[in-house]
Amino acid sequence: MDKMLSVWKTVPKEGLELKDAPVPKIKDDQVLIKVKATSICGTDVHIYNWDEWAQNRVGKNIPYIFGHEVSGEVVEAGKNAKGVAIGDHVSAETHISCGYCYQCKTGNEHICQNVKILGVDTQGTFAEYVALPCRNAWVNDKKLPHWVATVQEPLGNAVHTVFDGEITGKTVAIFGMGPIGVCAVGVCKAAGAEKIIAIDTHPSRLKFAKDFGADVIIQDGSPEAQAKVQKQIMDETNGLGTDVFLEFAGSPAAMKNGLATLKAGGRASILGIFPKPFEMDVTNDIVFKGIRIGGITGRKMFDTWYKTKSLLPKIGLERLITHRFRLSEVEKGFDVLKRKKGMKVVLEP
Amino acid sequence: MDKMLSVWKTVPKEGLELKDAPVPKIKDDQVLIKVKATSICGTDVHIYNWDEWAQNRVGKNIPYIFGHEVSGEVVEAGKNAKGVAIGDHVSAETHISCGYCYQCKTGNEHICQNVKILGVDTQGTFAEYVALPCRNAWVNDKKLPHWVATVQEPLGNAVHTVFDGEITGKTVAIFGMGPIGVCAVGVCKAAGAEKIIAIDTHPSRLKFAKDFGADVIIQDGSPEAQAKVQKQIMDETNGLGTDVFLEFAGSPAAMKNGLATLKAGGRASILGIFPKPFEMDVTNDIVFKGIRIGGITGRKMFDTWYKTKSLLPKIGLERLITHRFRLSEVEKGFDVLKRKKGMKVVLEP
Amino acid sequence: MDKMLSVWKTVPKEGLELKDAPVPKIKDDQVLIKVKATSICGTDVHIYNWDEWAQNRVGKNIPYIFGHEVSGEVVEAGKNAKGVAIGDHVSAETHISCGYCYQCKTGNEHICQNVKILGVDTQGTFAEYVALPCRNAWVNDKKLPHWVATVQEPLGNAVHTVFDGEITGKTVAIFGMGPIGVCAVGVCKAAGAEKIIAIDTHPSRLKFAKDFGADVIIQDGSPEAQAKVQKQIMDETNGLGTDVFLEFAGSPAAMKNGLATLKAGGRASILGIFPKPFEMDVTNDIVFKGIRIGGITGRKMFDTWYKTKSLLPKIGLERLITHRFRLSEVEKGFDVLKRKKGMKVVLEP
Amino acid sequence: MDKMLSVWKTVPKEGLELKDAPVPKIKDDQVLIKVKATSICGTDVHIYNWDEWAQNRVGKNIPYIFGHEVSGEVVEAGKNAKGVAIGDHVSAETHISCGYCYQCKTGNEHICQNVKILGVDTQGTFAEYVALPCRNAWVNDKKLPHWVATVQEPLGNAVHTVFDGEITGKTVAIFGMGPIGVCAVGVCKAAGAEKIIAIDTHPSRLKFAKDFGADVIIQDGSPEAQAKVQKQIMDETNGLGTDVFLEFAGSPAAMKNGLATLKAGGRASILGIFPKPFEMDVTNDIVFKGIRIGGITGRKMFDTWYKTKSLLPKIGLERLITHRFRLSEVEKGFDVLKRKKGMKVVLEP
Repeated sequence: MDKMLSVWKTVPKEGLELKDAPVPKIKDDQVLIKVKATSICGTDVHIYNWDEWAQNRVGKNIPYIFGHEVSGEVVEAGKNAKGVAIGDHVSAETHISCGYCYQCKTGNEHICQNVKILGVDTQGTFAEYVALPCRNAWVNDKKLPHWVATVQEPLGNAVHTVFDGEITGKTVAIFGMGPIGVCAVGVCKAAGAEKIIAIDTHPSRLKFAKDFGADVIIQDGSPEAQAKVQKQIMDETNGLGTDVFLEFAGSPAAMKNGLATLKAGGRASILGIFPKPFEMDVTNDIVFKGIRIGGITGRKMFDTWYKTKSLLPKIGLERLITHRFRLSEVEKGFDVLKRKKGMKVVLEP
Repeated sequence: MDKMLSVWKTVPKEGLELKDAPVPKIKDDQVLIKVKATSICGTDVHIYNWDEWAQNRVGKNIPYIFGHEVSGEVVEAGKNAKGVAIGDHVSAETHISCGYCYQCKTGNEHICQNVKILGVDTQGTFAEYVALPCRNAWVNDKKLPHWVATVQEPLGNAVHTVFDGEITGKTVAIFGMGPIGVCAVGVCKAAGAEKIIAIDTHPSRLKFAKDFGADVIIQDGSPEAQAKVQKQIMDETNGLGTDVFLEFAGSPAAMKNGLATLKAGGRASILGIFPKPFEMDVTNDIVFKGIRIGGITGRKMFDTWYKTKSLLPKIGLERLITHRFRLSEVEKGFDVLKRKKGMKVVLEP
Repeated sequence: MDKMLSVWKTVPKEGLELKDAPVPKIKDDQVLIKVKATSICGTDVHIYNWDEWAQNRVGKNIPYIFGHEVSGEVVEAGKNAKGVAIGDHVSAETHISCGYCYQCKTGNEHICQNVKILGVDTQGTFAEYVALPCRNAWVNDKKLPHWVATVQEPLGNAVHTVFDGEITGKTVAIFGMGPIGVCAVGVCKAAGAEKIIAIDTHPSRLKFAKDFGADVIIQDGSPEAQAKVQKQIMDETNGLGTDVFLEFAGSPAAMKNGLATLKAGGRASILGIFPKPFEMDVTNDIVFKGIRIGGITGRKMFDTWYKTKSLLPKIGLERLITHRFRLSEVEKGFDVLKRKKGMKVVLEP
Repeated sequence: MDKMLSVWKTVPKEGLELKDAPVPKIKDDQVLIKVKATSICGTDVHIYNWDEWAQNRVGKNIPYIFGHEVSGEVVEAGKNAKGVAIGDHVSAETHISCGYCYQCKTGNEHICQNVKILGVDTQGTFAEYVALPCRNAWVNDKKLPHWVATVQEPLGNAVHTVFDGEITGKTVAIFGMGPIGVCAVGVCKAAGAEKIIAIDTHPSRLKFAKDFGADVIIQDGSPEAQAKVQKQIMDETNGLGTDVFLEFAGSPAAMKNGLATLKAGGRASILGIFPKPFEMDVTNDIVFKGIRIGGITGRKMFDTWYKTKSLLPKIGLERLITHRFRLSEVEKGFDVLKRKKGMKVVLEP
């Protein structure tokens, strides 16, 4: 058990390196997880591609093992590890918080001032083993397959966003049908939303939205489509607008369309990452309408996980996973995603 | 009692017209108020100046009587009027809601789909008498002088903004020391805020802030000052940032400074009206920080009024009133405000 | 259209009187509803039986028409009636609020200080026509059958209780499987509760609970069963207790069992009416556990109705209705309920 | 530094034993605190008196050092201790939580399933030194005197109770003017409550209430006084009742009076410990009034502490401390409290 296959970002350019490395040594408060499944996030694709964001964010960390979505089995536990035992099946909460800053001490560990992200700031999960603080190990039901359990982390993002306010009985517009947006559709459905309107530019993604329970899908093909998208949403809501707007697209057009069609007094929850600043009509879209906007990142620790665990069986999460490869086939996985041919890709060591 | 002095917007250009007009006839659900004091709002200055906003907003209503901040005595009551009696001293909630739209039926009358604003969409308060739906008449303690009571409406805006979230024990940055911003300082003080940081470009306004209880005042003189303002706020909060950011300036620079210095997990409440759309860094200032933004307009009907009534004696609201004129001297009042020589101007018929 | 069949409480003893009466005259803010379906509530059974509660509550009102659950068509509208039109299908919000007390002015009309209950304090719905303030007329989708729509009012009680806090992903114990309790099971199911545990003394009622989505049913047969009921609930929640406890039984034993098995930090929402005061262990069941208790009555006006409308199609409400009679057969309806042979009885003029 | 003076509960009867003991050895995640001030809580009086509660609660722990309210200086830190440094002045959050149960993982550490209370379940603070998990050490401003800082823990109970809901602008009845109740008066005052009505049986305690800002004091002398107390509260609230009811008395009569005079829709927060179960009229006092009750124990970790720190200077907490003794004079301290001659007694080693 001293060598393991692992996926490294070694040089500052596109690509990755598959190599043997020592199995991690754990600290007193950590557990060692034998990785059974690890999935590829959009963040990992940025790191693979070595785009500007990746250079700035992880440039100083290379060489290192990346990847953070995971499910596995605890095979070793540090002497101070609590709340988890050898043999447990676990996923990882990927925000490793300090526990002592203002945010950590007031119920907001997910926005800890000193947060480290697994596989971004630390050695990651694209490997046969990974070390994790015991507090970040979320114990799964053993009946949940590892290749599904690994996708709980992005599902958790969706749960966090959807439950930033009330959803049962509400009309909701969801922009951006990547894996998290599609999960959000499923979560809204499971929670009894009134009508779920899913918007994306890609027909193939909208098909997932439909499968996960979207009542209406709108293809938002071009900037010129903006007025048309707004009209469709207003038509679908009897001219009243939506109760809830969820942004997973990271697109200024989505932001505009979502706010413009949100009811006065409505709620917007934004998880999407926008490449750069953009113009907003704060007066008309926020102030006069008396709306509330929430910025969302990570998952509430651990309210979100409890909700996620409960909702998971109602969502059919396995349908999100389009590809499964061996860890050694990691390049195939990235290839699928770079060519936008898949939704969620799982790697199994 | 058939003729009354009143202030009209009659022609589509700068200015006003003082003239006699018939005393309003009331409807069954209205009361007739003998105006004892009416104060000038920034909105009235826009109407006086006949700027672009005024042309678009009230162009179709002229000729009409404007003004909406008021205190007076009920002298007549329609047969269906309830909750208010002849002889009562009253102020006006200026949002006249329909009572039947979604917002009205779910506790958000202030953002009613069919709202009419007193003195904007209806005959206003710059007159000896004004007709008002009984539901909009807020009964004042008779010990409260009319010339103070008229300023409860903008005080209510401040109360609504401050109590969009928790304030006791919180550090707060308040941008824009017009009458509402200064009221907000007083409200935060009365509610036991930890530290109140007031920011404005005018030293004279900051003096009001200081008088109403600001612990720190920052003069934000120029666009170049931005980095400096942010540094001062961070220094005053031990590098942690503020818990609460209140925007009354309607300034993109204030928005940027306020969001940039807000703690992760903090709360921004925005009442300021921005002349036009502007760039925001949603990713870094909202999403990653997990903050909450609330758009604020009007006053919650009538939670805000109850709180306002309770807090009023603790604030020393009379200190906000720099000028008192006869209604017939209305031009003097506007002159003071146009020359930015006063804070709050009260007219007494 | 001047005479109508109607059901009166005329004399202070058990029973009712079926007779002709004048069709009601409406006031300016009222609508006249042609009753298409009206259902019998437990309250009506109390009035029929003329028990102590009924004597105290409505003794001074007789002779009068009782009944309050209704669906019908608007056939006449007062000149000030707004928000509803002739031809609309409507149900009645049965709390007629004053609109001017503290509660009415702060979003709590359902606990208005001067509330009148339809069919209790006013002429009711067991008739061919009923007059109703326009504000209390809730417009239904015309595709919803009247005999189902009449049951929206008790469904609304359930919705109000369930949404007194979070429910999605939560474990919930629901005591008392009368019509409202069974509705609550359906509402929890539609909103994605984690596990629904229904408790009642009658197997026939538990069958309804099962049909409406209860995951676990517990028959709570006798006072001696108390320890056993608690054990079953704890076993079903892995020894952790429930997140949510809903009381519809009006039973001290249910209250004890529900609180004793509620998690520390959990939420109890109580709609049940208890015949008399009873002992509670406030220290151990409330204080040390840091729980929250909400007293529930009526429906939030009108948040609850919007949610109810949205959830109704997901619940299969028609399954609750065990009997349909002509209005002239009203005695048969009461007979069924007095013999506890039915769940919900609908009368159709 | 190997021997220290300390106060032990050694034998199962009334009294205490003052003796030398070894200075505690700290664990890796603990700090050693040199006690500068420690204050006597009602809990300590129970332990001294060895009443039934004490026998049941700590019988199995003797012999041990008791006491839990403390302020001191960190003199040693375990190798894993974070968030606190040698030389820091600290108070103790006395709930030592497990960090891994449901409550701990969802923001409710204060009601941890496995909580241990300092000085109850562990060696306490009536000593020259005490060992404390670093997470439980709350860093104080060095300008705050130790003899005041030690009283932050009960002040925190008051803060937790008061902020269980809105308080600014609200009318509040506070029952029980022991140290926590008096603190609650001060907290309500600092937060801008509308009117504070303090109720107790002892005139001397009501004097403290007055000093800390009560607007109205009511002496509730005997069970027969009940109707009179309710009348006084209703009179003081214009017949409307209070917005908020806070229970610190642990008295069924207080509970009844507080609920009976609470407005429909009001909020009751209960920290008082009642000696045994008692009768409540749930139907009329909770259900029909639509109120909310919160059980309160401990302090939110650490929201409450941040608020407490902020409010402390506004309250004049030092006025609560009626007696200061050397630790060696501990018997004098208990004597004062047993004879009900003091409010808060501080011991200084």
